[in-house]
Amino acid sequence: MSSESSEGGFMPSEEQMLALLSQIQDWQINHGSLLKNLESQTEHSVFSYPVGVSVYPTPFPKSQFRKAMDLQPVYNELYMAVAGDEEWLYNATKELIPTEPLADALWGIHEQSKEAESVQEISAAVFRSDYMLHMSGIQSSDSLAEHEATLKQVEFNTFSCAGAAHAKRVADMHRYMTRTGFYNFGDATEQQRPNAASLPRNDNIESLASLLATAHKAYGAPRSKGAEQTAILHIVQPYNFNIADERPIEYALWEREEPVHNYRLEWGEDILQYTTLTDTNELLFHPPWLAAHDPVEVSVVYMRAGYEAHEYDHTGWQARLRLEKSIAIKCPSILSHISTFKKVQQALTAPGALERFLAPDKAELIRNTFVQQYPLDQSVEGLRAQKIIRDDRISNHILKPSLEGGGNNVYDDIPEFLSSIPPAARSSYILMERIEPPLSRNLLVSRAGAPEGLVVSELGVYGTCLWKKTEALCNTCAGWSFKTKHADVDEMSVVKGYGCFDTPLLQ
Amino acid sequence: MSSESSEGGFMPSEEQMLALLSQIQDWQINHGSLLKNLESQTEHSVFSYPVGVSVYPTPFPKSQFRKAMDLQPVYNELYMAVAGDEEWLYNATKELIPTEPLADALWGIHEQSKEAESVQEISAAVFRSDYMLHMSGIQSSDSLAEHEATLKQVEFNTFSCAGAAHAKRVADMHRYMTRTGFYNFGDATEQQRPNAASLPRNDNIESLASLLATAHKAYGAPRSKGAEQTAILHIVQPYNFNIADERPIEYALWEREEPVHNYRLEWGEDILQYTTLTDTNELLFHPPWLAAHDPVEVSVVYMRAGYEAHEYDHTGWQARLRLEKSIAIKCPSILSHISTFKKVQQALTAPGALERFLAPDKAELIRNTFVQQYPLDQSVEGLRAQKIIRDDRISNHILKPSLEGGGNNVYDDIPEFLSSIPPAARSSYILMERIEPPLSRNLLVSRAGAPEGLVVSELGVYGTCLWKKTEALCNTCAGWSFKTKHADVDEMSVVKGYGCFDTPLLQ
Repeated sequence: MSSESSEGGFMPSEEQMLALLSQIQDWQINHGSLLKNLESQTEHSVFSYPVGVSVYPTPFPKSQFRKAMDLQPVYNELYMAVAGDEEWLYNATKELIPTEPLADALWGIHEQSKEAESVQEISAAVFRSDYMLHMSGIQSSDSLAEHEATLKQVEFNTFSCAGAAHAKRVADMHRYMTRTGFYNFGDATEQQRPNAASLPRNDNIESLASLLATAHKAYGAPRSKGAEQTAILHIVQPYNFNIADERPIEYALWEREEPVHNYRLEWGEDILQYTTLTDTNELLFHPPWLAAHDPVEVSVVYMRAGYEAHEYDHTGWQARLRLEKSIAIKCPSILSHISTFKKVQQALTAPGALERFLAPDKAELIRNTFVQQYPLDQSVEGLRAQKIIRDDRISNHILKPSLEGGGNNVYDDIPEFLSSIPPAARSSYILMERIEPPLSRNLLVSRAGAPEGLVVSELGVYGTCLWKKTEALCNTCAGWSFKTKHADVDEMSVVKGYGCFDTPLLQ
Repeated sequence: MSSESSEGGFMPSEEQMLALLSQIQDWQINHGSLLKNLESQTEHSVFSYPVGVSVYPTPFPKSQFRKAMDLQPVYNELYMAVAGDEEWLYNATKELIPTEPLADALWGIHEQSKEAESVQEISAAVFRSDYMLHMSGIQSSDSLAEHEATLKQVEFNTFSCAGAAHAKRVADMHRYMTRTGFYNFGDATEQQRPNAASLPRNDNIESLASLLATAHKAYGAPRSKGAEQTAILHIVQPYNFNIADERPIEYALWEREEPVHNYRLEWGEDILQYTTLTDTNELLFHPPWLAAHDPVEVSVVYMRAGYEAHEYDHTGWQARLRLEKSIAIKCPSILSHISTFKKVQQALTAPGALERFLAPDKAELIRNTFVQQYPLDQSVEGLRAQKIIRDDRISNHILKPSLEGGGNNVYDDIPEFLSSIPPAARSSYILMERIEPPLSRNLLVSRAGAPEGLVVSELGVYGTCLWKKTEALCNTCAGWSFKTKHADVDEMSVVKGYGCFDTPLLQ
């Protein structure tokens, strides 16, 4: 792939543009590719608007796409093992506890939940490994042609992984646009005339529903006396504007050949109000619309909330604790949740760390996707980071806190930023080599407009796993998301309006 | 069915209500059960909001539902024959020409289009026959039990019949709500706990797409030299907020096993700009996003615009004329369009009128669905109408103009209204016995709120036909819509916010 298309011939004419945008907009409205506008929310109505999407699919090398998909079961294996190694995980993250309230809450709840007598030995998880292509630093062990861009991991998400449903819909949208010929204008470039065979299929929704259904089945029949049926419980944030990314999984579960009962419950007070624990720690859900005598035993708790520190006030803490104490299968377990901190990602780059969890050949495959990462502590690696900062070799690095998403990353003036925070807080950050992705051109359409320009893309690969202690019951690459943003924007978040959902045009 | 449920026990509690409304709202957002908010429209974004729906399905007798479905092929046969009898149709509607600009335009365009040399002998149509249940006036020939409500026709629509896609989606929604158990609260009534088997399936979108695909195939290969392919052209209104009722038919055509190319073009100037007629009257579409040398030959013109008089300014007239002159198959033909005037509905009630078009047994079936209708002219029936007015027996009658929808009907003070219009204008109205439907209770949710109350429903039955001169190539009952409004509201229009889409709970 070329790193930058020529300037000429990319922009459609105004008429072509209006035709494209009208097609895209109406397709999104008809297929739930939408976000709620919460300011307009009433009990009986709400406005929605189309989620940001790229007008065209963006080129991406097929070999790297396949490689990321093939690698996912190895990543799943790694993170199942990490979640099973409490001691290692504690050592990797303990420095966060004094400074990161979320880490403090999760470890605290984990400790308290151990007091529950019965334990569920089965865990489920939906992971998402995010990559960008990196233009330099190709390792000699790579068999790739020189100068070819190669996959490097941006981050690994183990908790409440979003975007799967949106990604599937936007993939369907680009496929529709392709098959209807709306890209085929007379002077269209190769990117503008994609061929449907170059757009990978996306079965995210079905894959995630399938994992949850498998976990539900693994839980088995209701164990408590009061309940006649089991059901999956989706734990979601209140006032959620992104229901179009969550609901499709519910619908898919209801629409399976053997429909799986599943309900959603909002994080916080509602968990305390509408669930109870039996003496033997079955989690019972008492739906507000059912008579009080007819509870449902929860088979699987699927977490789409509880990923932000502010959610762990007293109520939130008690709510999560109740879920964790229960024998419902957690998707994911709290130890899997803890493994989402970037300190874990960085700790896995330390010499020998991967080999603790994986066979050497698998460890090598994973390591090839790592860029250089350093802790900011007194370890050998930490001292190396400080030397990089001192020597002013910092420009191709990013400072990342152990928080969700890329919104809190520090890209510029890293030494200045580090001086401004208490020394104890530094250890919750990692210093990471900056990935230098190749550039493409595209138009990204959202509420903000449809500007054309240089863009960079990020490939997310979903993994689904179910395991019992150290035995994997299910370990699958579940699909992908592909997000694109203007090259001059740092954050990728689509729901915040920075990035757009996209489809890789495999080349 | 009872004409009115008891007051007690119908209203869900506030908690139950919030759970129901949240389910409904999110389902609608995820399934395109939406309308655009045009004030917010920009080129790159727009707000949408859920179309009005009933919270519960509303009871409807299964026997009358089946009867309406079974009757549709007979109605199709009738209206195919009416459209084929230009002389009768002209006599039935000629009094409209001086006073109704739409009738004037359609007959004028029809006359001008005759000048074209080649003629397309095949016609297609999507009809919709609207019924309400009527509590009185049961005829002795009916085999129905005494006091049972029976079907009476409100109107017959032959042009741009809307609601099919919305109806299908809302039917799916009520089915989802039923299967998920969201109606099963402890003190729920029978209506509140519907059984999925009592909710009829709805395949409207597939049925309409299937008709258009059949018509497309009947047109055959491109005949003009310039075109390499044929396609269906949807003629739609500009600034359309109801794309969710139109687009699904396009998508269904693209998604067929043998995808049917189809595009949309806005009424008016765009038709003149982006279509041409060949010397032999093939209609060529020059998509704005394609190079000029690559036109598409139009196989079928599917009309979802041109039903309002104001659309026939000079540009609109010329646009419709071009379509009519072409040898594309029209869905529907202009004579079918003219048969949508309520004067035609009334003329068919005259003695012997139905027998002109149908065998006596079929005519009888149709006649059983008629309420008494009168012209307001000097005919014997017209004089009878004037006697009804003079004798003040008018209270159970409605005055209907020959316009689209029920928004211009006169329900009260009919004598006063008639005195206020010029005598010549009276003949465009018909006087119709008022249908007295049974009442149910329901909650209707829309942007305006979710009030509970007494409601009445209207069943629409879609018919699809394809015919060549007098030979029917296809004559099918294509599906149904079901709309419900509060009993104290006169107009049913959902998109205007009066009625709601609903599903019949067959009993």
